[in-house]
Amino acid sequence: MSLFRPNIDQMQGYVPGEQPQEKDWIKLNTNENPYSHSPRVAEAIEKAARSRLNVYPDPLVKSFREEASKLFNVDPDWILPANGSDENLTILVRSFVDPGEVISYAYPSYVLYESLAEIQGCPCERLLLNEDWSWDLDRVQPQVDKSKLLFVPNPNSPSGTLWDDETLIKLIPPKGILVLDQAYGDFCDSPDKGSLIKGEHGAQVVITRTLSKSYSLAGIRFGFSIAQPDLIAGMRKVKDSYNCNTLSIAAATAAMQDQEWMQKNARRIQVTRERLTLALRLLGFDVQDSQTNFVWATHPKRDHEQLYQELKARRILVRFMKFPDTINGLLTGLRITVGTDTEIDTFLEKLKEII
Amino acid sequence: MSLFRPNIDQMQGYVPGEQPQEKDWIKLNTNENPYSHSPRVAEAIEKAARSRLNVYPDPLVKSFREEASKLFNVDPDWILPANGSDENLTILVRSFVDPGEVISYAYPSYVLYESLAEIQGCPCERLLLNEDWSWDLDRVQPQVDKSKLLFVPNPNSPSGTLWDDETLIKLIPPKGILVLDQAYGDFCDSPDKGSLIKGEHGAQVVITRTLSKSYSLAGIRFGFSIAQPDLIAGMRKVKDSYNCNTLSIAAATAAMQDQEWMQKNARRIQVTRERLTLALRLLGFDVQDSQTNFVWATHPKRDHEQLYQELKARRILVRFMKFPDTINGLLTGLRITVGTDTEIDTFLEKLKEII
Repeated sequence: MSLFRPNIDQMQGYVPGEQPQEKDWIKLNTNENPYSHSPRVAEAIEKAARSRLNVYPDPLVKSFREEASKLFNVDPDWILPANGSDENLTILVRSFVDPGEVISYAYPSYVLYESLAEIQGCPCERLLLNEDWSWDLDRVQPQVDKSKLLFVPNPNSPSGTLWDDETLIKLIPPKGILVLDQAYGDFCDSPDKGSLIKGEHGAQVVITRTLSKSYSLAGIRFGFSIAQPDLIAGMRKVKDSYNCNTLSIAAATAAMQDQEWMQKNARRIQVTRERLTLALRLLGFDVQDSQTNFVWATHPKRDHEQLYQELKARRILVRFMKFPDTINGLLTGLRITVGTDTEIDTFLEKLKEII
Repeated sequence: MSLFRPNIDQMQGYVPGEQPQEKDWIKLNTNENPYSHSPRVAEAIEKAARSRLNVYPDPLVKSFREEASKLFNVDPDWILPANGSDENLTILVRSFVDPGEVISYAYPSYVLYESLAEIQGCPCERLLLNEDWSWDLDRVQPQVDKSKLLFVPNPNSPSGTLWDDETLIKLIPPKGILVLDQAYGDFCDSPDKGSLIKGEHGAQVVITRTLSKSYSLAGIRFGFSIAQPDLIAGMRKVKDSYNCNTLSIAAATAAMQDQEWMQKNARRIQVTRERLTLALRLLGFDVQDSQTNFVWATHPKRDHEQLYQELKARRILVRFMKFPDTINGLLTGLRITVGTDTEIDTFLEKLKEII
C-alpha cells in the first residue's frame, strides 16, 4: 500500500539533462554558460565563507533585491528572490493554482511546467505553436481563456525564438496570470526591462529570471521573480522563510554588481552563436535564428537520436529532444548550447565526421 | 479581484524569529549555535568559490549522501538532502497529503506545520500535549487515526523535552506517515541513530535533520530526510531537480566529515544549558530539563511579553511565545537559546536587573 498522493505515485518525475561529474566532457546539453563567473563573485563567496554562517540568512534578501531593482528600474518590493528559477515556478503554481484549475504552457517549450502541474494536481494544457514557432491566437484562445496560470518562456526553448509584447498581451488569461520565463533574456539583442509588468496589464504578469545562464552561476541556484508588489507579497507567503542562503545571496549580489562581466560573456556567446548557426546550415541542418545561448537544429534526412548518440560516444553532450504532440505530430531535434569557440570547433569537427 | 488561491489570500504567512542585521545584539531567539562553523567547512566553500559554478550542481548530491549515510549506518538511498529542513517539511506535505486530508502535529510545538497545511489546503489538527509535555494517548488517538501526516519534533520545541520510541510508535497514523523532526537531535544525551525507521514501523516513519543548529550552519540552508528508500524515491519526484547548490553541498559535506567539531560544540552547549537552567530556577522561573540548545522558562508571577520587551530594550533577543489553545488554555513563556558562556552571563545579569 502506497501512502503517497495518487498523482505523485503516477508521475514519472522531471528528468534534468545529463550531468556527468567527470570534467572531460564537452557539455552542450543544459545551456550552461561556458565562461567562468566574475572574480568579484568568487571574492564575495570567500568573504561569506568566513562570516557568521551560524546565523540565519536575511529572510528579505535586501542586498540582492536592491541591486536587481535598479536594473529593472523598479522598487525592491517588486523583486522576489528564490532558490533557482525552478523554485520561482513552484512558488507561482502553489500561489495561484488550486488543484483542478488549469495550467497551460507554450508547446514545445519547457516540459518542467507539466511536472509542476502534476505535483499540484492540476490539468495541464499544451498551447500548440505553429511549425514556425509563431502563435495561432485564434486556435489557442479557448485554452487561454480557461487558464489560471499560463507559462511562456520568452525567448523560448528549444526554439530560441522571441515573441513581441503585442502577441504576449493576447496570451494573458482573463482570470489568470501570464508568467514570462525570461531565463535566457540577457542573450537577446534587446533585453526586456519589464515593459509588460509596468503597463496596464501588470497586475496579471510575472517575469522570472535566473542567474544560472547569463551570469554563469547555475551552481549557486539563484533566480528571482519581478512583478507588482501585491503579487510579490502574496507569493512571499508561500515560499520558505529562508529560501536563499548566505553564500548564494553574497554571490548573486556581487554578480548583479558586475554587469560588465555578464554582458561581455553574453556578447561573446552571441558571436559564437551566429558562427554555429551558419556552420550547421552548411552541414544541411535547419536552424532557427536564436535569441538565446543555444540553437535548435533539425536535419531533414538524419535521425536526431542517432546523431546525439554518436556525439555522446565522442564525449560531446547535446540535448536530444522529442515532443510527441506538436501541430505536426512528433517533433525531434537537437538543442545545442553555445559553448566556447574551441568547444564549438571540436563539436563541428566531430559532427562533420558523423554526417 | 485577487487571483491568488483563497487559502493563500486568507493566510497570514509564517513569521520567523527576528533577525536584526546589526551585530551588537545578543541573539537568543532563533536557536542558532553561538559557535562558529568548522574551519574545514570554510575551506571547502573557498575551494568551491573558485570551482565551475557555471555548471549545475550534482542533482543527486552524492558526496553529502555518502557522508550522512555512514552516520546513520544506512545506504545513501535512505538520504534526501534539501534546501534547509523547512524544504524537507514542504516536500513531505506535497508528497503525502492531498488537499482536504488531515495534517496534525504535537501542540505546542513548531507552528510552521500549520502554515504548510494552509498552503496545501489541508485541515490541520493540534494534538494537545499534557501540561508536563507528556502525551495522553487515549485522548489523541482519534486524531492520530485520521491523520495522513503527523509531525512530532523530537526533542520538542519549545519544551526541549524528548519522547521515547515506545510513545512515538503509538503516534504512527494507521494510514499515514509519522515525521520525526530531529532538528535538535544532536543536543540529546543519547542522539537517535534512526531506530524507528529501521524497525518494523519503518515504512511509515520519516526523520528530518538539519545542519542549522548543531553544525552551526543556519546560513547555508541544508537539511536532509532519512527514511526507507521507497519513501525517499517518491519524495525525490516532488523536489526541484537542483534544490541544493554547489556551495552548500561542499559546506555540508565538509561539516559531516568533521564530527569532532560539531560534538565539541554540542558538549559546550550542554554544559552551559545546565548552568542556565539552574540560574533561571534560582530567579524563580519554572524551567524544563532540556535535551536541546534552548530552554523553556515560565515565571509564575511575571508577564512574559514584558520580560521579552525589557530584554529587547537592552539589545538581548529571546523568543516570547504564545500558544492560545493548550490543554490549560493560553500558554506563554520564554524560549531562550543557549548562547556562549559570556552571552548567558550578560543575559542573566540583565535579567536580574529586570526581575
